[in-house]
Amino acid sequence: MLLVQKFGGSSVATAQHIAEVAQKIQRVIEQGHQVVVVASAMGDSTDHLVDLASELTSMPAGREMDALLATGELVTVALLAMALEQHGVPARSFSGAQAGIRTTYDFGRARIESINPGPLRRTLAAGITPVVAGFQGATASGDVATLGRGGSDLTAIALAGALNADRCEIYSDVAGVYTADPRIVPDATPLSSLSYDEMLELASQGAQVLQTQAVEYAKGQQVVIHARSTFRDEPGTQIEAEPVIPVKPAVTAVALNRHVAKVGLMGVPDYPGVAAYLFSSLAQHGINIELVIQSVSHDKLNDIAFTIDEHDVARARPVVEECLVNLKGQALVIDDTVAKVSAVGSGMLGRPGVAATVFQALADAGINIQMIGTSEIKISCIVARKDAEHALEQIHKAFGLDLSQEVIEDTF
Amino acid sequence: MLLVQKFGGSSVATAQHIAEVAQKIQRVIEQGHQVVVVASAMGDSTDHLVDLASELTSMPAGREMDALLATGELVTVALLAMALEQHGVPARSFSGAQAGIRTTYDFGRARIESINPGPLRRTLAAGITPVVAGFQGATASGDVATLGRGGSDLTAIALAGALNADRCEIYSDVAGVYTADPRIVPDATPLSSLSYDEMLELASQGAQVLQTQAVEYAKGQQVVIHARSTFRDEPGTQIEAEPVIPVKPAVTAVALNRHVAKVGLMGVPDYPGVAAYLFSSLAQHGINIELVIQSVSHDKLNDIAFTIDEHDVARARPVVEECLVNLKGQALVIDDTVAKVSAVGSGMLGRPGVAATVFQALADAGINIQMIGTSEIKISCIVARKDAEHALEQIHKAFGLDLSQEVIEDTF
Repeated sequence: MLLVQKFGGSSVATAQHIAEVAQKIQRVIEQGHQVVVVASAMGDSTDHLVDLASELTSMPAGREMDALLATGELVTVALLAMALEQHGVPARSFSGAQAGIRTTYDFGRARIESINPGPLRRTLAAGITPVVAGFQGATASGDVATLGRGGSDLTAIALAGALNADRCEIYSDVAGVYTADPRIVPDATPLSSLSYDEMLELASQGAQVLQTQAVEYAKGQQVVIHARSTFRDEPGTQIEAEPVIPVKPAVTAVALNRHVAKVGLMGVPDYPGVAAYLFSSLAQHGINIELVIQSVSHDKLNDIAFTIDEHDVARARPVVEECLVNLKGQALVIDDTVAKVSAVGSGMLGRPGVAATVFQALADAGINIQMIGTSEIKISCIVARKDAEHALEQIHKAFGLDLSQEVIEDTF
Repeated sequence: MLLVQKFGGSSVATAQHIAEVAQKIQRVIEQGHQVVVVASAMGDSTDHLVDLASELTSMPAGREMDALLATGELVTVALLAMALEQHGVPARSFSGAQAGIRTTYDFGRARIESINPGPLRRTLAAGITPVVAGFQGATASGDVATLGRGGSDLTAIALAGALNADRCEIYSDVAGVYTADPRIVPDATPLSSLSYDEMLELASQGAQVLQTQAVEYAKGQQVVIHARSTFRDEPGTQIEAEPVIPVKPAVTAVALNRHVAKVGLMGVPDYPGVAAYLFSSLAQHGINIELVIQSVSHDKLNDIAFTIDEHDVARARPVVEECLVNLKGQALVIDDTVAKVSAVGSGMLGRPGVAATVFQALADAGINIQMIGTSEIKISCIVARKDAEHALEQIHKAFGLDLSQEVIEDTF
């Protein structure tokens, strides 16, 4: 088999960690597999580089910031190649540019434009294990560009796609995807498999196992992902098109996003085009909105509420203030003490009663639901931030996720 | 004017240092000059990378070691470019490869094969200051290769040659070249100018101001070097073809090399080819020899003595032991408690009595001369290492180098 194995920052934090990773790779190669390794920067070395830059300027040029940050991964891959050779595995390090990864010019959040698989193919054919710097590539004019935080996942999945690898293994300090964040819900259990769509809903909900863009890329290229722990020998989670499970549970996992703010424009006169005007103003300023509720109150006045990322509040405030004036609304409410809890599962398709179970669980716990949003495979509720963890536990329990999957099957 | 300015590791040791260097460059650009900047790795960051590698392997592959070490300079140039922009100077960082520096495949001590001045010329033409990572280039197949310790000097001088720069300024924590190492001879005075040949003799004598290969390159390309202190405003030393000085002093400067060992093969039968056999054996093992003395002792037996670098003793010992057996010699003496003191000056050409002054100075101080070597512009003496500093001071004084140059003129 041809495997792409990606090791995150905590897996290569010290020389000792790198030696252990090399040993792990060696064992896989001894079993007759071919491996392309992708590695992140060592531990917190990227933060150290960011600190250095911030001592010099508050507005670094994107090209220079990328040239700076990309060095972190270069250090790891040279060291890891040395460690592999020390373990008798012929190895060669590659920068993103050397590995044929061509990117756009959006420094700091570049997209992969194309991959020339030639250099890595030739290296594999020569019996040498390539060790590729994650998180980076080069523009057409040879500038180094980075793919944004977590971009090493994308590097690994994109290489797996370009090389037609059998599987892309993402190693980190987390043993895969759980039914809920184990730091919040101690009863959370690991998932052996889930679909790209479920993972996408979970990733955007703040489950930090895999970068969202990487999962989207995997879905497009049909790359099978296996998320595993580097140093603990646990089965991990397989992410693929639609896992074959005899009877799917209605809810696969729950997720929590604390970084949400609620914006409400109260008492806006009801005439056509109000929502379009409001939301296009926000879009022009690059502010994403999520859940939206519009309710008709007394005297033909509307209340319009929606959620945004907490970090966008400062930028959003002047925009909505201007909208309120132009729409002749009565009041503006911005509440950044809320959170979003979500239940995700492709098994809820065609199963009535799932939403009711979520709402009942919160009602039983005395937690008020402020807003509701749904997709085909997700139910999200906005609750007070202070209630968020309790809400997550209640939903997790209501769907039997704290028990084995066989029992879940019987629940529905 | 087009200047190449190179800043060594101690000049860019911290973010604060980098900000000061940026300010210094800005002032030069404000005066209407164009500058190409070359920078080394920050402070002891290269040592840190070497330590990491040594934790993983005692025999790192040269290609991987170079990929690792080259990251140090990449960090500096990205930060320095940011700092320049912060000071209002449009700037762009370049790796060696991006700057068009093509090297041989001798990883760890690669030579510059060619420089494509296009990328830097275009950058300068666009009014942008290029900041180039020293010490590195890329092979024809795109591998990163380094030029050996001190290689940033070579980068700067080679770029100055390729770009036809008016001058190459080498900034470090040393205020240029002195008549002797000021840490040993407190009376040492700075030299305002000296010739390439004088600098070469001094560099190989352990005067660590400039890398020898860089000076040779400068001589070949006729690049005028100006060695200066980064943060102290002193005139520094100009190194060029043959400085025009009304009356040249016989001796320009003195130098000390403590890392010398003396090897003696005693009682070797005298027949043709003895020396050739001995020295070709050493050459085959990559061991350089320097001063050589062959003296005929009693009974047609020769004593052959020569000096080597102290660090080569372990490798040289088995070679000379085998030679002694094959030559039927009587005894082997290896003495690593010696040092070499040298007086250097192109002014000694055609001036008799200079050697005599050196020997008399040492005799007056009661210092025994064990071996003597001379070139056209250098006189070297091997003395006991314990006497070395005293010897250096005595020669320095004998030629009046502790006084102003006007007085030196009168001495001869």
